Amino acid sequence: MIRVVLCGTGNLSQQLFNAFRASDLVEVVQVAGRNEDNLEVFKKYTVTTTNFDRLEQADVYVMAVSDNAIESLGQKIGKGLLVHTSGSTSINKLPDTIRRGVFYPLQTISKNLNIEFAQVPVCLEAEDEDDYLVLERLANTISKSVLRLNSTKRFNLHTAAVFANNFSNHLWNIGEEICEQNDLPADLLKPLIMETTRKLGHMSSFEAQTGPARRGDTITIKKQMEALEKPSHREIYKAITQSIQETYAKEL
Amino acid sequence: MIRVVLCGTGNLSQQLFNAFRASDLVEVVQVAGRNEDNLEVFKKYTVTTTNFDRLEQADVYVMAVSDNAIESLGQKIGKGLLVHTSGSTSINKLPDTIRRGVFYPLQTISKNLNIEFAQVPVCLEAEDEDDYLVLERLANTISKSVLRLNSTKRFNLHTAAVFANNFSNHLWNIGEEICEQNDLPADLLKPLIMETTRKLGHMSSFEAQTGPARRGDTITIKKQMEALEKPSHREIYKAITQSIQETYAKEL
Repeated sequence: MIRVVLCGTGNLSQQLFNAFRASDLVEVVQVAGRNEDNLEVFKKYTVTTTNFDRLEQADVYVMAVSDNAIESLGQKIGKGLLVHTSGSTSINKLPDTIRRGVFYPLQTISKNLNIEFAQVPVCLEAEDEDDYLVLERLANTISKSVLRLNSTKRFNLHTAAVFANNFSNHLWNIGEEICEQNDLPADLLKPLIMETTRKLGHMSSFEAQTGPARRGDTITIKKQMEALEKPSHREIYKAITQSIQETYAKEL
Repeated sequence: MIRVVLCGTGNLSQQLFNAFRASDLVEVVQVAGRNEDNLEVFKKYTVTTTNFDRLEQADVYVMAVSDNAIESLGQKIGKGLLVHTSGSTSINKLPDTIRRGVFYPLQTISKNLNIEFAQVPVCLEAEDEDDYLVLERLANTISKSVLRLNSTKRFNLHTAAVFANNFSNHLWNIGEEICEQNDLPADLLKPLIMETTRKLGHMSSFEAQTGPARRGDTITIKKQMEALEKPSHREIYKAITQSIQETYAKEL
C-alpha cells in the first residue's frame, strides 16, 4: 500500500484523488488545502487539514497546486518524498534538503469532467532510484503510460502540449466566433473538428494537412485574411499560414 | 432518380461518387476528367469521358475541381444546373447564362480515408427555387445536415473552418515537431489531443480553454517562447497567446 498525502484542492487534486481512490494499492491518508470550504468534497472519504505543519506520515506528498505556489509550499512542507505535478517547473524549485520528484500527468484538466487516466502519459522525475521506483509504482496504479523525463524534456513536452492542446482549442474558439459574427450556427464546425481528430488515427498530422495554405492558394488566403474583423485573428492567420507554407515549401 | 454528372477526379469527386452510389435515389451517369488515368477508378461503375463537350444529359452537373479551375471549366460546360463544391468561391464565378448553384460539403477530404457524409453539413446555394429543391433532394441522399447559405456566409464559414480544422491540424504538427526536436515520442500528445476534442462534447471551447495564457502565467509564457527554436513557432506562440489573453482579459 502506498500512502499518499495530497496537497491542493483544485481540479487536478480532485481528479488524482478519485483515480488513487479507485486503486487498492493506494491510500490517500490526507488532503491538505488552505481553504476549509474547498476541502469539503474530500471530507467524507479521508482526513483533511488546512495546516501544512500537521501533515500525516506518507510515502509520497503530492502537491497539485498552481506553478507559482510550488516553491513556497515546497519549503513549507519540507519533508518526505515531495513531488510537484507541473509540466513547466523544474524539480529544482523544490527544496534540495529533502527527497524530491515530479509526477506530471500530461492532460488537460477541467472541472466536472472526469479524466480517464489509463491512457494519460504520466511523466516522472526523481533524483534517487528508490524514490523513482515508488513514483513508478504509484503512477502505474492509474496509467498504462508511465515514462521518466528530466526537467528539460518535461518542459519541452509541456510546450508541445500547449500548441497541440491549448492553442488548438483556442482556434476552435475563433472558428466559432467567426461563425457567430456571421450568424452561422457554431455547431456546424463540430463534425469537421471530430473528423480532423479522427484522421490522426490514420495518418500523421503532416500528411493530414489540407487547406488554402498547403495548396498555396494565395487568392483565397488574401481574401480570407482581409475578411477577418479582429486584428488578433489576422495576426494568427498570417503566422500560421506562413508556417504551413514553410513546412510544405518543397511541394509547391 | 436524380441523374448526376461528376466533373473532376480528385479526392472529393471520389468521395462524392461513393456516397451517391450508395443511394438508390441518385445515379451518377458519367464522370468527366481531363486525365484518362484518373478516370480509371470510376470506369467499372459508370461511363467516363475526357471530353467536356460530350457530357451526358443530367439533372445536376457537379464540378469537384480546384478553386482556380471553376471559372474556366464552368464556361466550358456551360449548361444544365451546374454547381461547384468550393467554400470560398462565389456562385458568380459560374456563367450567369445558365442555371447555377453551389454544393459545398464542409469537410476535410484526404486520400484513402472515407468520409461519413451523414454528419457532414452540406451547404447549398441556388438562384432558382426549383433548382434549390433539386440540390436539397440530392444533398439529403448523403447527409442529415443540409443548409442554405449565400456565397458570403459560405465564404465566412470556410474561413472559420480554416481556423478550426487546417490551422488546428498544423498546431498538432508543430507539437509533434517540438517533441521530435527534443527526442520525445510524438505519440505522447495523442491522448491529450483526443481528450481536448472529447471535451467539446461536454463544454464550449470557450470554457474548455486551459494553459498558461488563460491563467495569465507570464513566467511560463516567457520561458516557453524563449525555448522555441523556430522563429515561425515563436510568431505563432505570440499571436495565439495574445489572442487568448484578450479573450479572457476580464478574468485576470
